[in-house]
Amino acid sequence: MRRSISIIILTGLIIVLTAALTAALMYINNQPVSNRGINQIFEVPAMEPDSAQWGLNFPNQYSTFLLTKTNQNRTKYGGSFPYSKLEINPRLVILYAGSGYDIDYNEERGHLNSLTDVRSIERINNKTPGTCYSCKSSDNPGLWAKMGMAEFDKTMFSELGKNINNPIGCANCHEASTMRLVVTNPALDEALKSQGKDWRTFTRQEMRTVVCANCHVEYYFAGEGKYLTFPWKNGTRIEDITAYYDNIGFKDWQHAISGAPMIKIQHPEYEMYTADSTHYRAGVSCADCHMPYTREGAAKFSTHDVKSPLLNANLACGACHRDVEYATYRAATIQSQVQMSMNVTEDALIAAIKTIKAASLKPDPDMKVLAEARQLHREAQMRWDFVAAENSMGFHNPEEALRILLSSADLARQAQLKAVQAAGSPAVIWNGSH
Amino acid sequence: MRRSISIIILTGLIIVLTAALTAALMYINNQPVSNRGINQIFEVPAMEPDSAQWGLNFPNQYSTFLLTKTNQNRTKYGGSFPYSKLEINPRLVILYAGSGYDIDYNEERGHLNSLTDVRSIERINNKTPGTCYSCKSSDNPGLWAKMGMAEFDKTMFSELGKNINNPIGCANCHEASTMRLVVTNPALDEALKSQGKDWRTFTRQEMRTVVCANCHVEYYFAGEGKYLTFPWKNGTRIEDITAYYDNIGFKDWQHAISGAPMIKIQHPEYEMYTADSTHYRAGVSCADCHMPYTREGAAKFSTHDVKSPLLNANLACGACHRDVEYATYRAATIQSQVQMSMNVTEDALIAAIKTIKAASLKPDPDMKVLAEARQLHREAQMRWDFVAAENSMGFHNPEEALRILLSSADLARQAQLKAVQAAGSPAVIWNGSH
Repeated sequence: MRRSISIIILTGLIIVLTAALTAALMYINNQPVSNRGINQIFEVPAMEPDSAQWGLNFPNQYSTFLLTKTNQNRTKYGGSFPYSKLEINPRLVILYAGSGYDIDYNEERGHLNSLTDVRSIERINNKTPGTCYSCKSSDNPGLWAKMGMAEFDKTMFSELGKNINNPIGCANCHEASTMRLVVTNPALDEALKSQGKDWRTFTRQEMRTVVCANCHVEYYFAGEGKYLTFPWKNGTRIEDITAYYDNIGFKDWQHAISGAPMIKIQHPEYEMYTADSTHYRAGVSCADCHMPYTREGAAKFSTHDVKSPLLNANLACGACHRDVEYATYRAATIQSQVQMSMNVTEDALIAAIKTIKAASLKPDPDMKVLAEARQLHREAQMRWDFVAAENSMGFHNPEEALRILLSSADLARQAQLKAVQAAGSPAVIWNGSH
Repeated sequence: MRRSISIIILTGLIIVLTAALTAALMYINNQPVSNRGINQIFEVPAMEPDSAQWGLNFPNQYSTFLLTKTNQNRTKYGGSFPYSKLEINPRLVILYAGSGYDIDYNEERGHLNSLTDVRSIERINNKTPGTCYSCKSSDNPGLWAKMGMAEFDKTMFSELGKNINNPIGCANCHEASTMRLVVTNPALDEALKSQGKDWRTFTRQEMRTVVCANCHVEYYFAGEGKYLTFPWKNGTRIEDITAYYDNIGFKDWQHAISGAPMIKIQHPEYEMYTADSTHYRAGVSCADCHMPYTREGAAKFSTHDVKSPLLNANLACGACHRDVEYATYRAATIQSQVQMSMNVTEDALIAAIKTIKAASLKPDPDMKVLAEARQLHREAQMRWDFVAAENSMGFHNPEEALRILLSSADLARQAQLKAVQAAGSPAVIWNGSH
């Protein structure tokens, strides 16, 4: 009897151990390659521009990243389908008159199309500086290390392009040896330094927002060398940025109708989001919504198919919001409220532009007052563009977007009033439609 | 042996039953009196105006309700301390010029002070109709049942006052026999009917918002009989309400400076909150935040010390938001953004008022265009007042409040431009400060 008990115990033990080992092996097999240890299977050189090489170690991240090439999704106010913004909203032709954006202004496609798309922009010509490649290629980190950013920027676009073969890729946000998130754009590093910040001290969750600021920011080309610069020295609110540009007397272009010295705001997603938005304050990073954690088999990873969370609401919103239908309904409501307010603001801006134009055509306008009107047009449009060029129809920070639009509409109407004063006659007031 | 087992089982059964009975009795004993059944200990007559009588059955609700008399809390933008709004913001004297609100406009105190406070308002005079008692007394449901609302409203304030002895109380929201929440104000019943709604079909959670609309709404006094009416026929958004007033050609007063036919918006908390706000959409009722569930011993009840949730954030916000500090920080951020936007809007309104005034003083202004300017002033100020008179500094519906303020500022500046056109000269433009 004692022998048969021993046999039963031993057999049981064997079954349990075998089951445990099988489970452990299945678990290991389902892990992404990277998690097996710091030693990757394939060694990727520092700043390797070819994302396919990184993809050998990170097949899930890479295969989702590849979707940014082929996906062409359209959301109500954005997405990755390359429609013409000018066709959707013809008011932009007046608002951007003389900037180049009145000729060609398309919705962006996904990250892997960055190189193809920048090369097909009609605004690009033989005077375009290399700076325009800053956010378009995974070759950049290597080139910046080799040439320095000053040299990179002052090289002509066409010349620099000979060394650029890859669209945005792994090397733009990751360090090859450790896979940690890093600031690769020297302009971002310098902008943070100008505010007394060092990204090397940031938490991983902070970096999951900051690496997006390698590109998704307002910037300008400083001086003859077209040196890429973020206007962040005073802070990243629109008022801080306005003060920065006013202080250095900078303009991107002269408005072809009003004659005002203008700034074209780029895509200040980082600035808008981090201006104390509700999600930012709650500790949510860009990646949490735009690259939500997903599963492939038993492997959990952050999807690299970066896109609108509205196209992926169950994962993107559902990670925190139990009621995804409620969350997306709220997003739609907010975006519609911002869209309505944007329309009111654009009408005010166009009225200002047309009235300033009419005043300038008067035989003897008060040039000092006309300059004040133009300065008001500049400031009003900078505010509006901070919301208009920001890719979220206000959702990244609804109250801030609406607060800014209100100030924009008010300043635009003040510009119109100043133009009347410059003309000395209310006959210049533009009330028409377009 | 079988006998001893039986004894053990029976003894066990007795212990279990005794414990269960004790627990059940303790539970029953800890319930509020009301939950013991529909039969209350003290029978309260229908529409009993004396809240103390209801309080015998509901001591916890009543003793918290009594706090609304003594509490004088001040929050950053509101509260129950009766400070003068005109002293805090002298711009209101210009904005409300000629309405009476430019003489006397104080922050409200708690519900139990309603009668004392309405009787001490300096705007009240011997032409004031009884309608002004509509939201001030628990005697009203009985009086409305006896006299009818038409008779109530057309009786003079001083005369009607002889029958009014109690401030706001239980009878304003509850049915005595069942304690269910009911619409008692006939004007609310009629306003809902005008929209094809019947509150008798609403859920209890809906009623926990709708009963607040007995008073916390926009209203006006219709016709000679000063018949209390909510302007809701077209809907409860500001655009619907504006269209309603324009359609019937109604004005509350003529602006003493601009000469515009004005509407004084009252306290449209219900309209603002239910305009698809984030909390409303999430199913949160007014009572959830302003009368949160609380405990006294083992009794759970809705506190009747109705006040700002910011004064009770752990209970009010904490019921849903785990991170109360985050929630209150967000409230402060939003209110500050709305306050900033309110200031911009008020400046635009004052510029419109002063410019219209200057235009009207010209020897021969274009009266048709001047009337258009005044109409724009009316519409702009109605929008601003919809946010300004609403007690939450925009928090009840931040995006809606900001969307409305933007439209207000834009319309105010358009009013100013029209005034310039009416005058035929930009010399009338008011740029000054005040």
